[in-house]
Amino acid sequence: MSNDCRVDNRSDVAQELARVAERDDEVRAWVSRHKDNDIIEAVDAATDGLLSGWTLGVKDVINTFDLPTERGSPIYRGNQPLDDAACVALAREAGAVVTGKTVSTEFALFTPNITRNPHDSARTPGGSSSGSAAAVADGQVRSALGTQTVGSVIRPAAFCGVVGFKPTRQLLPMAGVATLSHSFDSVGWFTRDVADCTTMFRALSTATASQESLHGRIGRYLSHQWAAAAPETVKVMDSSCSALNDAGVEVVDVETQPHLESVFDAADTILHYEIFRVFAWERTNHPDLISDLVQRMFLKAESIDLDQYLSAQAVLRLAQQAHEQFMAASGLDGLLTPSAPGEAPSIETTGDSIFNRVWTSLGVPTIHLPVTLGPSGLPVGVQLVGQSLCDQRLLAAAAVVEDSFGIAT
Amino acid sequence: MSNDCRVDNRSDVAQELARVAERDDEVRAWVSRHKDNDIIEAVDAATDGLLSGWTLGVKDVINTFDLPTERGSPIYRGNQPLDDAACVALAREAGAVVTGKTVSTEFALFTPNITRNPHDSARTPGGSSSGSAAAVADGQVRSALGTQTVGSVIRPAAFCGVVGFKPTRQLLPMAGVATLSHSFDSVGWFTRDVADCTTMFRALSTATASQESLHGRIGRYLSHQWAAAAPETVKVMDSSCSALNDAGVEVVDVETQPHLESVFDAADTILHYEIFRVFAWERTNHPDLISDLVQRMFLKAESIDLDQYLSAQAVLRLAQQAHEQFMAASGLDGLLTPSAPGEAPSIETTGDSIFNRVWTSLGVPTIHLPVTLGPSGLPVGVQLVGQSLCDQRLLAAAAVVEDSFGIAT
Repeated sequence: MSNDCRVDNRSDVAQELARVAERDDEVRAWVSRHKDNDIIEAVDAATDGLLSGWTLGVKDVINTFDLPTERGSPIYRGNQPLDDAACVALAREAGAVVTGKTVSTEFALFTPNITRNPHDSARTPGGSSSGSAAAVADGQVRSALGTQTVGSVIRPAAFCGVVGFKPTRQLLPMAGVATLSHSFDSVGWFTRDVADCTTMFRALSTATASQESLHGRIGRYLSHQWAAAAPETVKVMDSSCSALNDAGVEVVDVETQPHLESVFDAADTILHYEIFRVFAWERTNHPDLISDLVQRMFLKAESIDLDQYLSAQAVLRLAQQAHEQFMAASGLDGLLTPSAPGEAPSIETTGDSIFNRVWTSLGVPTIHLPVTLGPSGLPVGVQLVGQSLCDQRLLAAAAVVEDSFGIAT
Repeated sequence: MSNDCRVDNRSDVAQELARVAERDDEVRAWVSRHKDNDIIEAVDAATDGLLSGWTLGVKDVINTFDLPTERGSPIYRGNQPLDDAACVALAREAGAVVTGKTVSTEFALFTPNITRNPHDSARTPGGSSSGSAAAVADGQVRSALGTQTVGSVIRPAAFCGVVGFKPTRQLLPMAGVATLSHSFDSVGWFTRDVADCTTMFRALSTATASQESLHGRIGRYLSHQWAAAAPETVKVMDSSCSALNDAGVEVVDVETQPHLESVFDAADTILHYEIFRVFAWERTNHPDLISDLVQRMFLKAESIDLDQYLSAQAVLRLAQQAHEQFMAASGLDGLLTPSAPGEAPSIETTGDSIFNRVWTSLGVPTIHLPVTLGPSGLPVGVQLVGQSLCDQRLLAAAAVVEDSFGIAT
């Protein structure tokens, strides 16, 4: 690695640290951070690798040996794991420098935490990877790890206006990442552009750079949830498709797939059944330290029995197979679909994951691409959904889509 | 719960504690244990539930808030998690009393640890759930949790002569259980009979008792690995089928399935790729504390790239679908197949998982049933393999098979 690159890294890092100093009181993206001098020294001493000298925020549900992992819950205050989560260790092995832990909602669920949207502090950054999305969007760190069980990467990426990526389920190890719903949990990350996102994927999967031969065709998929799309979402879907056409990419309208409608309710059943069991220790030992919102979720969850769960799993498995067959036969590089209903709502909620649930449940890779600003000046963008195990193909398609937006604006 | 039941529990527990006192120096099943008086008090005070007052050993790769989790590795010496793994918390919620942590091989891999086979201390108890199988087999505890990634429940159950069960993959939460290979890891358990095994399943899945209507047909499946079967395994497969016939259960010979041959190598590729990444922190921070056997495994693993992994995953997924279709159409209650090549080998290894890899990789539930003793006086038995998500059906079939052995002997 050349000295020039180290100098670039140091200059970028100085800017990021200045940004944190200036903005942390307002954005509140961090639970804990290393000292500035330690970060600068670590960047200077970074090992060679794809992420050499990259600063990295780590969502506070992902274990780090050098900073506590509190999971957005007072139950885990001061909890210091002995080791790094596998994804963190892999990032460090590739040269990344962990600068701190980013704010998560309680247990990566829906209760808003302290982080604010960097574009408007009266708005949510989205959840549950709130701090990771906000920190990258605000220029406080180059990249940040998050997790997604329903929409916890794509939604905050959309609300904060950064690239957010969730790989194929279980392609990357979840060791050391707090479980929420094991059928759906995935690690993911936030970056400023698709190039950085792709480099992160290569680092964590230790994939070599690939030359994907794309079809040059994208499917426009409005989904069964289209009625929830706000005007800015309708508009950004239209403008994105126009930009793609202008860039020579064919956009094909894809009808809503019947097998995907059934997934929506099945996923909710599976999520609730699993959460009730995953949190057995917290439920039985610290009920007083669990928020009302999560307690209500447990109450609903308790009524779901094994037979309902198994039926939902059977529905999901059939839908996964049907979707794989559909995508393989479609000749499409990806499905373009909304990331979120609209701009970020106010801080009372973390926003709606209605446009994320089906894709996460299918286990397919998905990426959010920021496009423009909405009527309130907050970011809006689109989601591009790929095929299971074809993450590099999706990232290659995302680069094309990102380029087309550059052409159009 | 009646007082009589408590008295029974107390008397059983006194016997178990006496057994530990007498035999622990030889069997060495425990890494750490609660004090006898504390166990007795906890049993007396056990909450009502399906497992009320049951003593439970917990494999030392499964987190417990009250005892360290050392994962069979000096890297994790004294490692004290803040919380219980979900499966432990669920068992405690159902009334189980954790008596201690049982010996695991290093990282639940293949390096033998200190535990000896309770039937012959020159023989292995099997791995990696060595202590859990040995403790139940030796009457030191009523039940014990283990984990299986290749054959780490079924194999030690076979070598020690107890019932061992691995449910459908991801049916039970892995939260708080150390990851080895996320595509294959599952929690499982050891009990003395199928009735206890079934109660444990109901407790951990909170399933109601079900009336499964069985076909009364079992498939005899010798598998592509049949050449590895020792004479005692050939014999126990024959005698088991005769016993089933005598009990009025139809035994059908099932030809080796082509889609299952490909799984064997694909599973090895997936396992190695995942292990190399899962252990990124241990590899990069404590290479000196990792055994030569595991270091050699990492060396092999490092050479497997993402494309090889993705190809193997594609092979596995097709095989899983083909197997589901085959089983659903077969009208069989389960496949009867070897659990292990033969009696437990000597303590230099933990034995061969050759008869376990395919089933674990498919994610289907599987159970070991002890049948008789082999030529060296060590236990031999059979494996009954079920259909994904149909765990209660497999357990019902296992009860029938277990009964048939009672009739025949």
